[in-house]
Amino acid sequence: PSLTSSSGEGPAAHRSLPESEDVVVTSKDSITVITLNRPAKKNAITYQMYQDITLALKAASKDNSTITVFTGNGNYYSSGNDLSNFSNRSGSLQQMYAESALTLRNFVDSFIDFPKPLVALVNGPAVGIAVTVLGLFDAVYASDRATFHTPFSSLGITPEGCSSYTFPKIMGPAKAAEMLIFGKKITAREACAQGLVTEVFPHNTFQKEAWARLTAYAKNPPKAMRIGKQLLRSFGKETLHAVNAEECRVLQERWLSEECVNAIQTFFSKKGKL
Amino acid sequence: PSLTSSSGEGPAAHRSLPESEDVVVTSKDSITVITLNRPAKKNAITYQMYQDITLALKAASKDNSTITVFTGNGNYYSSGNDLSNFSNRSGSLQQMYAESALTLRNFVDSFIDFPKPLVALVNGPAVGIAVTVLGLFDAVYASDRATFHTPFSSLGITPEGCSSYTFPKIMGPAKAAEMLIFGKKITAREACAQGLVTEVFPHNTFQKEAWARLTAYAKNPPKAMRIGKQLLRSFGKETLHAVNAEECRVLQERWLSEECVNAIQTFFSKKGKL
Amino acid sequence: PSLTSSSGEGPAAHRSLPESEDVVVTSKDSITVITLNRPAKKNAITYQMYQDITLALKAASKDNSTITVFTGNGNYYSSGNDLSNFSNRSGSLQQMYAESALTLRNFVDSFIDFPKPLVALVNGPAVGIAVTVLGLFDAVYASDRATFHTPFSSLGITPEGCSSYTFPKIMGPAKAAEMLIFGKKITAREACAQGLVTEVFPHNTFQKEAWARLTAYAKNPPKAMRIGKQLLRSFGKETLHAVNAEECRVLQERWLSEECVNAIQTFFSKKGKL
Repeated sequence: PSLTSSSGEGPAAHRSLPESEDVVVTSKDSITVITLNRPAKKNAITYQMYQDITLALKAASKDNSTITVFTGNGNYYSSGNDLSNFSNRSGSLQQMYAESALTLRNFVDSFIDFPKPLVALVNGPAVGIAVTVLGLFDAVYASDRATFHTPFSSLGITPEGCSSYTFPKIMGPAKAAEMLIFGKKITAREACAQGLVTEVFPHNTFQKEAWARLTAYAKNPPKAMRIGKQLLRSFGKETLHAVNAEECRVLQERWLSEECVNAIQTFFSKKGKL
Repeated sequence: PSLTSSSGEGPAAHRSLPESEDVVVTSKDSITVITLNRPAKKNAITYQMYQDITLALKAASKDNSTITVFTGNGNYYSSGNDLSNFSNRSGSLQQMYAESALTLRNFVDSFIDFPKPLVALVNGPAVGIAVTVLGLFDAVYASDRATFHTPFSSLGITPEGCSSYTFPKIMGPAKAAEMLIFGKKITAREACAQGLVTEVFPHNTFQKEAWARLTAYAKNPPKAMRIGKQLLRSFGKETLHAVNAEECRVLQERWLSEECVNAIQTFFSKKGKL
Repeated sequence: PSLTSSSGEGPAAHRSLPESEDVVVTSKDSITVITLNRPAKKNAITYQMYQDITLALKAASKDNSTITVFTGNGNYYSSGNDLSNFSNRSGSLQQMYAESALTLRNFVDSFIDFPKPLVALVNGPAVGIAVTVLGLFDAVYASDRATFHTPFSSLGITPEGCSSYTFPKIMGPAKAAEMLIFGKKITAREACAQGLVTEVFPHNTFQKEAWARLTAYAKNPPKAMRIGKQLLRSFGKETLHAVNAEECRVLQERWLSEECVNAIQTFFSKKGKL
């Protein structure tokens, strides 16, 4: 298994990541595809997957692809952070949360710094961190079955993925706060009207229509697209890194708060009863 | 009458402000409600009311409520600045306008710095300063009878409430300038499409639907909501204060300008004739 | 021919620019109108026209008009940069592109610094630079026959007109990048939903409705409108100038790139065959 360039490999070559099959990287028509592949768990993102995705983005930034695509396998795009990340690990709580904050920060930084056009195919419901980083994508195509939900407050936590900065910019503070602070779940059409999503397609034709567009776009001169994307991001990148650092700092404190501890205990006790 | 925390008081306890009944503060289900209560004058904001609202916001920032709500009593949300503020006071014009600019600046600063989720229930038409500060709220629910009107230029004056900065960010410069420079009045649905309003409800069910949502949201862990809101505002607060200071400085000059003096004279002479 | 104030001239006085009839300046009801007048070439902008428009904006900033309007004569608003700009001139390529970058930078600066309300009447399709500078206007009224197309990447080039900064602010990065990086052409209604366009009118009534609005707006006190507009632009002007400089720097490099040279050769060889 390797993360090197796909040159020499056939189309749609499958490249597993070193540690697991939960994140799969394929390549086709000058497009690198990073797929969350944990459908039985609604593509919830484990601690390992954060690291795998960070590595996959670093590899894609250097391979010979023109566009990089992010999507999920199965009915969900991603249910977000796997809360078992906080119950399955060893060491002190302080140490675990410090590591988690650093891993999250590196993960988000790899989106901020990604140098080529980055497109999300949101094939179904998206939750938490899977929603918030969408503000760092260059295009977001959504199935009409997709929903966008960031229930941070009810878990005692706060927004990440630079959403505290990107969402108010994209949709205005009055719509951003309803999502990020009050936890309102919105539909794909609402997310599109608010600028978070580029376009919505009927679920039946979603893959076909989105891929028709992607393969057409991938034929553009690659350097012009890469340099153009960097231009769009240039006057704001430092702020994004500062926002990411601050969000992770606040979140690390939140994870230790009574509100968060109680919310997560409630979550697992409910799960245990089912 | 006091502005202290509502702890110990019953639900919906009525707390009048020291100087008048024109601004009323109540408390219910962990929600503090600040109501403009001058329906016979379309809730036009007097010099005293600016100060009362500033105090009410400072008190609400320290009470044990989770969310603070702003609304109007009667058919109007608020017709904005009461122009009699500029005819009923003593001292030199220069002194009066210097005081007015300072009062306005403190008023807007209290919105910028408000530390908890702040929600507007726009129950009817909103004009001028009542519209512009909406860009500083975390959610804005509107009756479909609400309209949004900022006729600054026709009065010879310029935008305040940080709208010269927040409105272009929220709706783009081409829609913001039509409102703020050309004085276009927009409907609740237009304001919602442009991101100034979070959601519009039919007038008949407005209170019921908005309050159902508010009482649900108020049950979220309060610290997570407060810290989350502060995160959303953190990378922009200094700019907002600078914008507010600049807007008030420009406005103080405008009030003394021939354009403004003529417009206000015309306003009162028309009123006198009716 | 002169660019001085229209005072003393009759309504709709026609003022040709020094060098050509391709840019025409007229004056009516306190409104200065700058018209792209090269309908046989879809109002493509020649090297000379960039300079004429820059001069026309400087003149309009000092004349006694209240509002300045930009529009196109014929079926097109403007097909953007005339690519023959890069084939018809003498000197080394390096020199030509350095001059072109400087001319473009001055052209865009004159929009950034324009001190009065600036309104575009987009009477038909708009392409490239004619689209990108719209982010610097205070109102954009569009015929429903207008379209908005920025096919930069396919030509091997990158965005200008400050669009790399203004478009993500106006419509969010996911819609901005689809236009600016992937070259998606959008309709007037889409551009309006995304905040680039203020309002869309049916083509048959476009001129009538837009002009009814403009003549009404032009009756507002002019200083209040001018100072109000400057307030809206004040906290961002330095960034816009920096963005413009960077976009022109990148573009100057791009024009010499293999991707761009090939794309322009293909363009002209296709044209030759038709």
